[in-house]
Amino acid sequence: MQVIKTAAKMKEASTHLKKSQKSVGYVPTMGYLHEGHLSLVEKAKRENDIVVMSIFVNPLQFGPGEDFDSYPRDVNRDIQLAEEAGVELLFLPSAAEMYRENHAVSVSVNGRTDVLCGRTRPGHFDGVATVLTKLFSIIAPDKAYFGMKDAQQVAVVDALIHDFFMDVELVASKTIREKDGLAKSSRNINLSPIERDQAPYIYQSLQAGAAMIEQGERDPKAVISAVLAHLEAAGGNVEYVECYSYPELKKQDVLSGKIIIAAAVKYSKARLIDNIVLTIS
Amino acid sequence: MQVIKTAAKMKEASTHLKKSQKSVGYVPTMGYLHEGHLSLVEKAKRENDIVVMSIFVNPLQFGPGEDFDSYPRDVNRDIQLAEEAGVELLFLPSAAEMYRENHAVSVSVNGRTDVLCGRTRPGHFDGVATVLTKLFSIIAPDKAYFGMKDAQQVAVVDALIHDFFMDVELVASKTIREKDGLAKSSRNINLSPIERDQAPYIYQSLQAGAAMIEQGERDPKAVISAVLAHLEAAGGNVEYVECYSYPELKKQDVLSGKIIIAAAVKYSKARLIDNIVLTIS
Repeated sequence: MQVIKTAAKMKEASTHLKKSQKSVGYVPTMGYLHEGHLSLVEKAKRENDIVVMSIFVNPLQFGPGEDFDSYPRDVNRDIQLAEEAGVELLFLPSAAEMYRENHAVSVSVNGRTDVLCGRTRPGHFDGVATVLTKLFSIIAPDKAYFGMKDAQQVAVVDALIHDFFMDVELVASKTIREKDGLAKSSRNINLSPIERDQAPYIYQSLQAGAAMIEQGERDPKAVISAVLAHLEAAGGNVEYVECYSYPELKKQDVLSGKIIIAAAVKYSKARLIDNIVLTIS
Repeated sequence: MQVIKTAAKMKEASTHLKKSQKSVGYVPTMGYLHEGHLSLVEKAKRENDIVVMSIFVNPLQFGPGEDFDSYPRDVNRDIQLAEEAGVELLFLPSAAEMYRENHAVSVSVNGRTDVLCGRTRPGHFDGVATVLTKLFSIIAPDKAYFGMKDAQQVAVVDALIHDFFMDVELVASKTIREKDGLAKSSRNINLSPIERDQAPYIYQSLQAGAAMIEQGERDPKAVISAVLAHLEAAGGNVEYVECYSYPELKKQDVLSGKIIIAAAVKYSKARLIDNIVLTIS
Protein backbone atom coordinates (compact mmCIF):
# COMPACT_ATOMS: atom_id res chain seq x y z
CA MET A 1 0.00 0.00 0.00
CA GLN A 2 1.24 3.43 -0.96
CA VAL A 3 0.64 6.29 1.51
CA ILE A 4 0.27 9.66 -0.21
CA LYS A 5 0.24 12.95 1.67
CA THR A 6 -0.06 15.69 -0.95
CA ALA A 7 -2.75 16.51 -3.48
CA ALA A 8 -0.15 16.84 -6.25
CA LYS A 9 1.18 13.31 -5.66
CA MET A 10 -2.34 11.91 -5.35
CA LYS A 11 -3.38 13.61 -8.58
CA GLU A 12 -0.32 12.20 -10.31
CA ALA A 13 -1.27 8.71 -9.12
CA SER A 14 -4.90 9.04 -10.21
CA THR A 15 -3.90 10.44 -13.62
CA HIS A 16 -1.62 7.45 -14.05
CA LEU A 17 -4.46 5.06 -13.11
CA LYS A 18 -6.81 6.75 -15.62
CA LYS A 19 -4.19 6.38 -18.36
CA SER A 20 -3.72 2.69 -17.53
CA GLN A 21 -7.52 2.31 -17.73
CA LYS A 22 -7.73 0.96 -14.18
CA SER A 23 -11.10 1.48 -12.51
CA VAL A 24 -10.86 3.22 -9.17
CA GLY A 25 -13.09 2.61 -6.15
CA TYR A 26 -12.83 5.29 -3.48
CA VAL A 27 -13.66 5.06 0.22
CA PRO A 28 -13.57 8.50 1.91
CA THR A 29 -13.23 8.28 5.70
CA MET A 30 -12.41 10.34 8.76
CA GLY A 31 -10.30 7.46 10.06
CA TYR A 32 -10.52 5.47 13.29
CA LEU A 33 -11.52 2.65 10.99
CA HIS A 34 -14.05 0.02 11.99
CA GLU A 35 -15.77 -2.85 10.23
CA GLY A 36 -18.16 -0.42 8.57
CA HIS A 37 -15.30 1.18 6.65
CA LEU A 38 -13.63 -2.16 6.00
CA SER A 39 -16.82 -3.61 4.50
CA LEU A 40 -16.83 -0.63 2.09
CA VAL A 41 -13.24 -1.46 1.14
CA GLU A 42 -14.22 -5.09 0.59
CA LYS A 43 -17.08 -4.08 -1.70
CA ALA A 44 -14.85 -1.58 -3.54
CA LYS A 45 -12.23 -4.28 -4.08
CA ARG A 46 -14.80 -6.57 -5.66
CA GLU A 47 -16.04 -3.86 -8.03
CA ASN A 48 -12.81 -2.06 -9.07
CA ASP A 49 -9.20 -2.63 -10.10
CA ILE A 50 -7.77 -0.30 -7.48
CA VAL A 51 -9.07 0.91 -4.11
CA VAL A 52 -8.18 4.36 -2.82
CA MET A 53 -9.02 5.35 0.75
CA SER A 54 -8.67 8.82 2.24
CA ILE A 55 -8.45 9.66 5.92
CA PHE A 56 -9.18 13.28 6.72
CA VAL A 57 -10.95 14.62 9.80
CA ASN A 58 -12.51 17.51 7.91
CA PRO A 59 -12.64 20.60 10.15
CA LEU A 60 -15.19 22.29 7.86
CA GLN A 61 -17.92 19.77 8.72
CA PHE A 62 -17.68 20.26 12.48
CA GLY A 63 -19.60 23.17 13.99
CA PRO A 64 -18.54 25.25 17.00
CA GLY A 65 -18.92 23.12 20.14
CA GLU A 66 -18.97 19.88 18.15
CA ASP A 67 -16.47 17.08 18.69
CA PHE A 68 -13.69 17.96 16.22
CA ASP A 69 -11.04 17.86 18.97
CA SER A 70 -12.35 14.71 20.65
CA TYR A 71 -13.09 12.88 17.40
CA PRO A 72 -11.09 9.66 17.80
CA ARG A 73 -7.83 9.42 15.82
CA ASP A 74 -5.23 6.67 15.45
CA VAL A 75 -3.44 6.98 12.13
CA ASN A 76 -0.92 4.20 12.70
CA ARG A 77 -3.63 1.68 13.49
CA ASP A 78 -5.64 2.97 10.50
CA ILE A 79 -2.67 2.52 8.14
CA GLN A 80 -2.30 -1.09 9.31
CA LEU A 81 -6.03 -1.83 8.97
CA ALA A 82 -6.22 -0.25 5.52
CA GLU A 83 -3.22 -2.25 4.34
CA GLU A 84 -4.65 -5.49 5.73
CA ALA A 85 -7.96 -4.76 4.01
CA GLY A 86 -6.19 -4.46 0.67
CA VAL A 87 -6.30 -0.69 0.07
CA GLU A 88 -3.77 0.13 -2.67
CA LEU A 89 -3.53 3.90 -2.16
CA LEU A 90 -4.09 5.68 1.14
CA PHE A 91 -4.44 9.47 0.85
CA LEU A 92 -3.76 11.47 4.02
CA PRO A 93 -4.14 15.14 3.04
CA SER A 94 -3.33 18.00 5.37
CA ALA A 95 -5.87 20.62 6.43
CA ALA A 96 -3.40 23.28 5.27
CA GLU A 97 -3.56 21.91 1.75
CA MET A 98 -7.29 21.16 1.66
CA TYR A 99 -8.06 24.65 2.98
CA ARG A 100 -5.19 26.80 1.82
CA GLU A 101 -4.91 30.30 3.20
CA ASN A 102 -7.40 32.66 1.55
CA HIS A 103 -9.46 29.81 0.10
CA ALA A 104 -12.44 31.56 -1.40
CA VAL A 105 -14.79 28.92 -2.73
CA SER A 106 -17.03 26.35 -1.04
CA VAL A 107 -20.11 24.25 -1.77
CA SER A 108 -23.50 25.18 -0.31
CA VAL A 109 -26.17 22.54 0.07
CA ASN A 110 -29.56 24.22 -0.04
CA GLY A 111 -31.81 21.18 -0.22
CA ARG A 112 -32.13 17.90 1.72
CA THR A 113 -30.54 19.66 4.70
CA ASP A 114 -33.43 21.39 6.47
CA VAL A 115 -34.25 18.13 8.27
CA LEU A 116 -32.57 15.46 10.43
CA CYS A 117 -28.93 16.31 11.26
CA GLY A 118 -28.95 19.30 8.90
CA ARG A 119 -31.28 21.16 11.24
CA THR A 120 -29.02 20.92 14.31
CA ARG A 121 -25.69 20.94 12.47
CA PRO A 122 -25.84 24.08 10.28
CA GLY A 123 -23.00 24.08 7.76
CA HIS A 124 -22.19 20.40 8.38
CA PHE A 125 -23.28 19.22 4.93
CA ASP A 126 -21.70 22.28 3.26
CA GLY A 127 -18.46 21.05 4.82
CA VAL A 128 -19.05 17.48 3.66
CA ALA A 129 -19.93 18.56 0.10
CA THR A 130 -16.98 20.98 -0.09
CA VAL A 131 -14.38 18.45 0.99
CA LEU A 132 -15.85 15.74 -1.25
CA THR A 133 -15.81 18.08 -4.26
CA LYS A 134 -12.09 18.58 -3.64
CA LEU A 135 -11.39 14.89 -2.95
CA PHE A 136 -13.37 13.69 -5.98
CA SER A 137 -11.42 16.14 -8.09
CA ILE A 138 -8.04 14.95 -6.76
CA ILE A 139 -8.83 11.22 -6.80
CA ALA A 140 -11.15 11.07 -9.85
CA PRO A 141 -12.78 7.79 -8.76
CA ASP A 142 -15.16 5.75 -10.88
CA LYS A 143 -17.17 4.78 -7.81
CA ALA A 144 -17.33 6.24 -4.31
CA TYR A 145 -18.47 4.17 -1.33
CA PHE A 146 -20.52 5.43 1.61
CA GLY A 147 -22.26 3.71 4.49
CA MET A 148 -26.02 4.10 4.89
CA LYS A 149 -25.63 4.87 8.59
CA ASP A 150 -25.03 8.41 7.35
CA ALA A 151 -28.16 8.31 5.18
CA GLN A 152 -28.53 12.09 4.93
CA GLN A 153 -24.90 12.33 3.85
CA VAL A 154 -25.66 9.78 1.12
CA ALA A 155 -28.66 11.89 0.02
CA VAL A 156 -26.45 15.01 -0.12
CA VAL A 157 -23.69 13.25 -2.06
CA ASP A 158 -26.35 12.00 -4.49
CA ALA A 159 -27.44 15.64 -5.04
CA LEU A 160 -23.82 16.83 -5.31
CA ILE A 161 -22.96 14.30 -8.01
CA HIS A 162 -26.12 14.98 -10.01
CA ASP A 163 -26.20 18.76 -9.68
CA PHE A 164 -22.51 19.14 -10.59
CA PHE A 165 -22.63 16.47 -13.34
CA MET A 166 -19.76 14.62 -11.67
CA ASP A 167 -18.38 11.45 -13.23
CA VAL A 168 -18.64 9.43 -10.03
CA GLU A 169 -21.03 6.63 -9.26
CA LEU A 170 -22.33 6.69 -5.70
CA VAL A 171 -22.44 3.29 -4.00
CA ALA A 172 -24.34 3.24 -0.69
CA SER A 173 -23.76 0.18 1.47
CA LYS A 174 -25.91 -1.14 4.28
CA THR A 175 -25.00 -0.19 7.83
CA ILE A 176 -22.65 -2.60 9.59
CA ARG A 177 -23.78 -3.37 13.16
CA GLU A 178 -22.47 -4.84 16.38
CA LYS A 179 -24.04 -8.18 17.39
CA ASP A 180 -26.55 -6.32 19.56
CA GLY A 181 -27.61 -4.11 16.64
CA LEU A 182 -25.73 -0.93 17.49
CA ALA A 183 -24.54 0.70 14.27
CA LYS A 184 -20.74 0.63 14.05
CA SER A 185 -19.36 4.16 14.45
CA SER A 186 -16.01 5.66 15.31
CA ARG A 187 -17.85 7.65 17.96
CA ASN A 188 -19.02 4.53 19.87
CA ILE A 189 -15.62 4.57 21.65
CA ASN A 190 -16.77 7.72 23.44
CA LEU A 191 -19.76 6.00 25.12
CA SER A 192 -19.63 5.20 28.86
CA PRO A 193 -20.21 1.50 29.73
CA ILE A 194 -23.81 2.20 30.77
CA GLU A 195 -24.47 4.22 27.60
CA ARG A 196 -22.95 1.40 25.54
CA ASP A 197 -25.54 -0.96 27.07
CA GLN A 198 -28.38 1.47 26.30
CA ALA A 199 -27.34 2.51 22.78
CA PRO A 200 -28.57 -0.67 20.99
CA TYR A 201 -32.12 0.44 21.81
CA ILE A 202 -31.74 3.13 19.13
CA TYR A 203 -31.83 0.50 16.40
CA GLN A 204 -34.47 -1.56 18.22
CA SER A 205 -36.71 1.51 18.37
CA LEU A 206 -36.27 2.16 14.65
CA GLN A 207 -37.04 -1.51 14.00
CA ALA A 208 -40.28 -1.16 15.99
CA GLY A 209 -41.23 1.76 13.72
CA ALA A 210 -40.31 -0.19 10.58
CA ALA A 211 -42.39 -3.17 11.80
CA MET A 212 -45.45 -0.91 12.20
CA ILE A 213 -45.07 0.29 8.62
CA GLU A 214 -44.70 -3.26 7.40
CA GLN A 215 -47.93 -4.07 9.23
CA GLY A 216 -49.74 -1.31 7.35
CA GLU A 217 -49.28 1.90 9.34
CA ARG A 218 -49.02 4.84 6.91
CA ASP A 219 -49.17 7.78 9.32
CA PRO A 220 -45.63 9.08 9.94
CA LYS A 221 -46.75 10.68 13.24
CA ALA A 222 -47.91 7.31 14.63
CA VAL A 223 -44.61 5.72 13.59
CA ILE A 224 -42.55 8.51 15.14
CA SER A 225 -44.53 8.35 18.41
CA ALA A 226 -43.94 4.61 18.67
CA VAL A 227 -40.20 5.00 18.00
CA LEU A 228 -39.99 7.78 20.60
CA ALA A 229 -41.73 5.57 23.18
CA HIS A 230 -39.28 2.74 22.55
CA LEU A 231 -36.34 5.16 22.64
CA GLU A 232 -36.82 5.81 26.37
CA ALA A 233 -34.87 2.60 26.98
CA ALA A 234 -31.92 4.06 25.03
CA GLY A 235 -31.14 6.73 27.63
CA GLY A 236 -29.36 9.83 26.40
CA ASN A 237 -31.22 12.83 25.01
CA VAL A 238 -33.24 12.17 21.90
CA GLU A 239 -32.38 14.90 19.41
CA TYR A 240 -34.84 13.80 16.75
CA VAL A 241 -36.94 11.00 15.36
CA GLU A 242 -38.11 11.82 11.84
CA CYS A 243 -39.64 10.09 8.85
CA TYR A 244 -39.35 11.28 5.20
CA SER A 245 -39.20 10.20 1.60
CA TYR A 246 -35.71 9.05 0.63
CA PRO A 247 -33.39 10.37 -0.77
CA GLU A 248 -35.43 13.57 -1.32
CA LEU A 249 -36.08 13.93 2.43
CA LYS A 250 -39.52 15.43 1.89
CA LYS A 251 -42.30 15.28 4.48
CA GLN A 252 -45.15 12.90 3.64
CA ASP A 253 -48.67 12.96 5.05
CA VAL A 254 -49.20 9.36 4.03
CA LEU A 255 -46.10 7.21 3.85
CA SER A 256 -45.37 5.77 0.40
CA GLY A 257 -42.45 4.70 -1.79
CA LYS A 258 -38.93 4.67 -0.43
CA ILE A 259 -38.82 6.19 3.04
CA ILE A 260 -36.42 6.71 5.92
CA ILE A 261 -36.99 6.58 9.68
CA ALA A 262 -34.03 8.18 11.40
CA ALA A 263 -33.02 9.08 14.94
CA ALA A 264 -30.25 10.97 16.70
CA VAL A 265 -29.46 10.53 20.40
CA LYS A 266 -27.00 12.57 22.41
CA TYR A 267 -24.98 10.82 25.11
CA SER A 268 -22.50 12.49 27.45
CA LYS A 269 -19.58 12.41 25.00
CA ALA A 270 -21.06 11.06 21.79
CA ARG A 271 -23.96 11.87 19.54
CA LEU A 272 -25.17 8.75 17.72
CA ILE A 273 -27.36 8.49 14.62
CA ASP A 274 -29.07 5.55 12.99
CA ASN A 275 -31.80 4.91 10.45
CA ILE A 276 -33.79 2.37 8.51
CA VAL A 277 -34.64 2.92 4.85
CA LEU A 278 -37.46 0.80 3.48
CA THR A 279 -39.65 0.69 0.41
CA ILE A 280 -43.43 0.53 0.77
CA SER A 281 -44.65 -1.51 -2.17
CA MET B 1 -19.43 22.28 -36.35
CA GLN B 2 -21.58 20.05 -34.19
CA VAL B 3 -24.32 21.71 -32.11
CA ILE B 4 -25.07 19.81 -28.90
CA LYS B 5 -28.05 20.57 -26.68
CA THR B 6 -27.94 18.07 -23.81
CA ALA B 7 -25.40 17.45 -21.07
CA ALA B 8 -25.47 13.70 -21.77
CA LYS B 9 -24.52 14.18 -25.43
CA MET B 10 -21.89 16.77 -24.54
CA LYS B 11 -20.40 14.45 -21.93
CA GLU B 12 -20.32 11.64 -24.46
CA ALA B 13 -18.45 13.89 -26.89
CA SER B 14 -15.94 15.07 -24.28
CA THR B 15 -15.33 11.50 -23.06
CA HIS B 16 -14.65 10.50 -26.66
CA LEU B 17 -12.20 13.41 -27.07
CA LYS B 18 -10.39 12.43 -23.85
CA LYS B 19 -10.06 8.84 -25.09
CA SER B 20 -8.69 10.04 -28.43
CA GLN B 21 -6.18 12.16 -26.46
CA LYS B 22 -7.35 15.36 -28.14
CA SER B 23 -6.68 18.50 -26.13
CA VAL B 24 -9.80 20.60 -25.58
CA GLY B 25 -9.91 24.40 -25.38
CA TYR B 26 -13.16 25.75 -23.98
CA VAL B 27 -14.71 29.19 -24.44
CA PRO B 28 -17.73 29.70 -22.15
CA THR B 29 -19.99 32.55 -23.30
CA MET B 30 -23.44 34.02 -22.79
CA GLY B 31 -23.73 34.47 -26.55
CA TYR B 32 -24.31 37.57 -28.65
CA LEU B 33 -20.77 36.97 -29.80
CA HIS B 34 -18.39 39.80 -30.58
CA GLU B 35 -14.71 40.06 -31.47
CA GLY B 36 -13.79 39.57 -27.83
CA HIS B 37 -15.25 36.06 -27.85
CA LEU B 38 -13.87 35.33 -31.30
CA SER B 39 -10.36 36.31 -30.26
CA LEU B 40 -10.68 33.75 -27.43
CA VAL B 41 -11.68 31.12 -29.99
CA GLU B 42 -8.70 32.05 -32.14
CA LYS B 43 -6.33 31.68 -29.20
CA ALA B 44 -7.98 28.40 -28.17
CA LYS B 45 -7.59 27.06 -31.71
CA ARG B 46 -3.87 27.82 -31.67
CA GLU B 47 -3.37 26.05 -28.34
CA ASN B 48 -5.65 22.97 -28.59
CA ASP B 49 -6.78 20.22 -30.95
CA ILE B 50 -10.48 20.95 -30.50
CA VAL B 51 -12.41 24.07 -29.49
CA VAL B 52 -15.66 23.80 -27.56
CA MET B 53 -17.84 26.87 -27.04
CA SER B 54 -20.90 27.08 -24.83
CA ILE B 55 -23.66 29.66 -25.06
CA PHE B 56 -25.81 29.90 -21.95
CA VAL B 57 -27.36 33.03 -20.51
CA ASN B 58 -27.04 31.82 -16.93
CA PRO B 59 -30.07 32.94 -14.90
CA LEU B 60 -28.26 32.25 -11.61
CA GLN B 61 -25.73 35.04 -12.17
CA PHE B 62 -28.34 37.76 -12.70
CA GLY B 63 -29.78 39.40 -9.61
CA PRO B 64 -33.35 40.70 -9.22
CA GLY B 65 -33.71 43.87 -11.31
CA GLU B 66 -30.66 43.05 -13.42
CA ASP B 67 -30.76 42.67 -17.20
CA PHE B 68 -31.45 38.93 -17.62
CA ASP B 69 -34.48 39.61 -19.81
CA SER B 70 -32.89 42.37 -21.87
CA TYR B 71 -29.52 40.65 -22.19
CA PRO B 72 -29.03 40.53 -25.97
CA ARG B 73 -29.60 37.16 -27.64
CA ASP B 74 -29.28 35.99 -31.25
CA VAL B 75 -28.56 32.28 -31.38
CA ASN B 76 -28.71 31.89 -35.15
CA ARG B 77 -26.16 34.65 -35.69
CA ASP B 78 -24.02 33.14 -32.90
CA ILE B 79 -24.08 29.68 -34.51
CA GLN B 80 -22.89 31.18 -37.78
CA LEU B 81 -20.13 33.23 -36.11
CA ALA B 82 -18.95 30.26 -34.05
CA GLU B 83 -18.81 28.05 -37.13
CA GLU B 84 -16.92 30.69 -39.11
CA ALA B 85 -14.46 31.08 -36.25
CA GLY B 86 -13.71 27.36 -36.37
CA VAL B 87 -15.48 26.13 -33.23
CA GLU B 88 -15.81 22.33 -33.50
CA LEU B 89 -18.44 21.75 -30.79
CA LEU B 90 -21.07 24.27 -29.74
CA PHE B 91 -22.88 23.42 -26.51
CA LEU B 92 -26.29 25.05 -25.99
CA PRO B 93 -27.62 23.69 -22.70
CA SER B 94 -31.10 24.42 -21.39
CA ALA B 95 -31.77 26.14 -18.07
CA ALA B 96 -34.05 23.21 -17.19
CA GLU B 97 -31.12 20.81 -17.43
CA MET B 98 -28.50 23.07 -15.83
CA TYR B 99 -30.83 23.76 -12.91
CA ARG B 100 -33.05 20.71 -12.63
CA GLU B 101 -36.05 20.86 -10.35
CA ASN B 102 -35.03 20.47 -6.70
CA HIS B 103 -31.35 21.15 -7.44
CA ALA B 104 -29.81 21.31 -4.00
CA VAL B 105 -26.16 22.19 -4.44
CA SER B 106 -24.38 25.37 -5.51
CA VAL B 107 -20.99 27.06 -5.20
CA SER B 108 -20.45 29.95 -2.80
CA VAL B 109 -17.62 32.39 -3.39
CA ASN B 110 -16.58 33.86 -0.05
CA GLY B 111 -13.43 35.70 -1.10
CA ARG B 112 -12.47 38.14 -3.87
CA THR B 113 -16.14 39.19 -4.04
CA ASP B 114 -16.50 41.85 -1.35
CA VAL B 115 -15.18 44.48 -3.78
CA LEU B 116 -15.84 45.78 -7.32
CA CYS B 117 -18.90 44.16 -8.95
CA GLY B 118 -19.26 41.65 -6.11
CA ARG B 119 -20.36 44.41 -3.77
CA THR B 120 -23.29 45.58 -5.90
CA ARG B 121 -24.13 42.21 -7.47
CA PRO B 122 -24.61 39.87 -4.48
CA GLY B 123 -24.78 36.27 -5.62
CA HIS B 124 -23.46 37.10 -9.10
CA PHE B 125 -20.16 35.28 -8.68
CA ASP B 126 -21.86 32.38 -6.86
CA GLY B 127 -23.91 32.00 -10.04
CA VAL B 128 -20.82 32.23 -12.26
CA ALA B 129 -18.88 29.70 -10.15
CA THR B 130 -21.85 27.32 -9.94
CA VAL B 131 -22.50 27.22 -13.68
CA LEU B 132 -18.78 26.92 -14.48
CA THR B 133 -18.42 24.01 -12.05
CA LYS B 134 -21.19 22.24 -13.97
CA LEU B 135 -19.86 23.20 -17.41
CA PHE B 136 -16.27 22.23 -16.57
CA SER B 137 -17.58 18.90 -15.35
CA ILE B 138 -19.58 18.27 -18.53
CA ILE B 139 -16.95 19.53 -20.99
CA ALA B 140 -13.77 18.49 -19.12
CA PRO B 141 -11.57 21.01 -20.95
CA ASP B 142 -7.81 21.16 -20.73
CA LYS B 143 -7.88 24.95 -20.95
CA ALA B 144 -10.66 27.48 -20.43
CA TYR B 145 -10.54 30.94 -22.01
CA PHE B 146 -11.80 34.14 -20.41
CA GLY B 147 -11.49 37.80 -21.33
CA MET B 148 -9.78 40.18 -18.92
CA LYS B 149 -12.60 42.71 -19.30
CA ASP B 150 -14.27 40.59 -16.63
CA ALA B 151 -11.18 40.70 -14.42
CA GLN B 152 -13.01 39.89 -11.20
CA GLN B 153 -14.60 36.89 -12.90
CA VAL B 154 -11.11 35.75 -13.91
CA ALA B 155 -9.98 36.13 -10.27
CA VAL B 156 -12.97 34.07 -9.09
CA VAL B 157 -12.39 31.34 -11.69
CA ASP B 158 -8.74 31.24 -10.61
CA ALA B 159 -9.90 30.63 -7.01
CA LEU B 160 -12.51 28.07 -8.13
CA ILE B 161 -9.97 26.03 -10.06
CA HIS B 162 -7.38 26.11 -7.28
CA ASP B 163 -9.72 25.58 -4.32
CA PHE B 164 -11.52 22.66 -6.00
CA PHE B 165 -8.30 21.17 -7.46
CA MET B 166 -9.85 21.23 -10.92
CA ASP B 167 -7.91 19.92 -13.90
CA VAL B 168 -8.46 23.02 -15.99
CA GLU B 169 -5.90 25.61 -16.94
CA LEU B 170 -7.27 29.14 -16.87
CA VAL B 171 -6.22 31.30 -19.82
CA ALA B 172 -7.02 35.01 -19.41
CA SER B 173 -6.82 37.07 -22.60
CA LYS B 174 -6.47 40.77 -22.96
CA THR B 175 -9.59 42.86 -23.46
CA ILE B 176 -10.54 43.45 -27.08
CA ARG B 177 -11.52 47.07 -27.75
CA GLU B 178 -13.25 49.19 -30.35
CA LYS B 179 -10.99 51.62 -32.22
CA ASP B 180 -11.91 54.36 -29.75
CA GLY B 181 -10.89 52.18 -26.81
CA LEU B 182 -14.32 51.06 -25.60
CA ALA B 183 -14.09 47.47 -24.35
CA LYS B 184 -16.10 45.14 -26.58
CA SER B 185 -19.15 43.89 -24.71
CA SER B 186 -22.44 42.31 -25.68
CA ARG B 187 -24.07 45.01 -23.60
CA ASN B 188 -22.70 47.89 -25.75
CA ILE B 189 -25.68 47.33 -28.08
CA ASN B 190 -27.90 48.70 -25.30
CA LEU B 191 -26.16 52.12 -25.24
CA SER B 192 -27.92 55.16 -26.73
CA PRO B 193 -25.95 57.01 -29.45
CA ILE B 194 -24.91 59.75 -27.01
CA GLU B 195 -23.86 57.16 -24.39
CA ARG B 196 -21.90 55.29 -27.05
CA ASP B 197 -19.94 58.52 -27.69
CA GLN B 198 -19.29 58.99 -23.97
CA ALA B 199 -18.44 55.39 -23.06
CA PRO B 200 -14.85 55.40 -24.46
CA TYR B 201 -13.95 57.83 -21.68
CA ILE B 202 -14.17 54.92 -19.23
CA TYR B 203 -11.02 53.39 -20.68
CA GLN B 204 -9.37 56.79 -21.11
CA SER B 205 -9.96 57.53 -17.43
CA LEU B 206 -8.43 54.21 -16.41
CA GLN B 207 -5.47 54.94 -18.69
CA ALA B 208 -4.99 58.29 -16.93
CA GLY B 209 -4.82 56.41 -13.62
CA ALA B 210 -2.39 53.86 -15.03
CA ALA B 211 -0.19 56.65 -16.38
CA MET B 212 0.01 58.22 -12.90
CA ILE B 213 1.17 54.90 -11.46
CA GLU B 214 3.74 54.54 -14.20
CA GLN B 215 4.98 58.02 -13.32
CA GLY B 216 5.50 56.96 -9.71
CA GLU B 217 2.22 57.53 -7.87
CA ARG B 218 1.76 54.80 -5.24
CA ASP B 219 -1.25 56.14 -3.34
CA PRO B 220 -4.40 54.32 -4.53
CA LYS B 221 -6.58 57.19 -3.30
CA ALA B 222 -4.78 59.67 -5.53
CA VAL B 223 -5.13 57.34 -8.51
CA ILE B 224 -8.83 56.78 -7.86
CA SER B 225 -9.49 60.52 -7.49
CA ALA B 226 -7.81 61.21 -10.81
CA VAL B 227 -9.79 58.46 -12.56
CA LEU B 228 -13.02 59.78 -11.06
CA ALA B 229 -12.24 63.30 -12.29
CA HIS B 230 -11.64 62.02 -15.82
CA LEU B 231 -14.77 59.87 -15.68
CA GLU B 232 -17.03 62.95 -15.64
CA ALA B 233 -16.66 63.00 -19.43
CA ALA B 234 -18.05 59.44 -19.60
CA GLY B 235 -21.55 60.47 -18.52
CA GLY B 236 -23.67 57.78 -16.87
CA ASN B 237 -23.53 57.10 -13.16
CA VAL B 238 -20.20 55.95 -11.84
CA GLU B 239 -20.83 52.87 -9.68
CA TYR B 240 -17.25 52.44 -8.57
CA VAL B 241 -13.61 53.18 -9.25
CA GLU B 242 -11.38 50.89 -7.19
CA CYS B 243 -7.77 49.79 -7.05
CA TYR B 244 -6.51 46.50 -5.53
CA SER B 245 -3.88 43.79 -5.71
CA TYR B 246 -4.66 41.29 -8.46
CA PRO B 247 -5.94 38.57 -8.51
CA GLU B 248 -6.31 38.59 -4.68
CA LEU B 249 -8.31 41.84 -4.80
CA LYS B 250 -6.90 43.05 -1.48
CA LYS B 251 -6.72 46.72 -0.51
CA GLN B 252 -3.23 48.22 -0.53
CA ASP B 253 -2.07 51.33 1.31
CA VAL B 254 0.91 51.64 -0.99
CA LEU B 255 0.49 50.18 -4.46
CA SER B 256 2.89 47.36 -5.31
CA GLY B 257 3.13 44.21 -7.39
CA LYS B 258 0.34 43.26 -9.77
CA ILE B 259 -2.59 45.61 -9.37
CA ILE B 260 -5.95 46.40 -10.97
CA ILE B 261 -7.72 49.71 -11.50
CA ALA B 262 -11.34 49.01 -12.36
CA ALA B 263 -14.50 51.02 -12.97
CA ALA B 264 -18.20 50.40 -13.48
CA VAL B 265 -20.53 52.96 -15.05
CA LYS B 266 -24.28 52.70 -15.31
CA TYR B 267 -25.98 54.06 -18.41
CA SER B 268 -29.71 54.11 -19.05
CA LYS B 269 -29.92 50.51 -20.31
CA ALA B 270 -26.44 49.11 -19.84
CA ARG B 271 -23.94 48.86 -17.03
CA LEU B 272 -20.39 48.78 -18.39
CA ILE B 273 -17.20 47.67 -16.68
CA ASP B 274 -13.58 48.00 -17.65
CA ASN B 275 -10.16 47.70 -16.02
CA ILE B 276 -6.42 47.89 -16.43
CA VAL B 277 -4.13 45.37 -14.77
CA LEU B 278 -0.49 46.38 -14.47
CA THR B 279 2.59 45.25 -12.64
CA ILE B 280 4.64 47.71 -10.62
CA SER B 281 8.23 46.57 -10.90
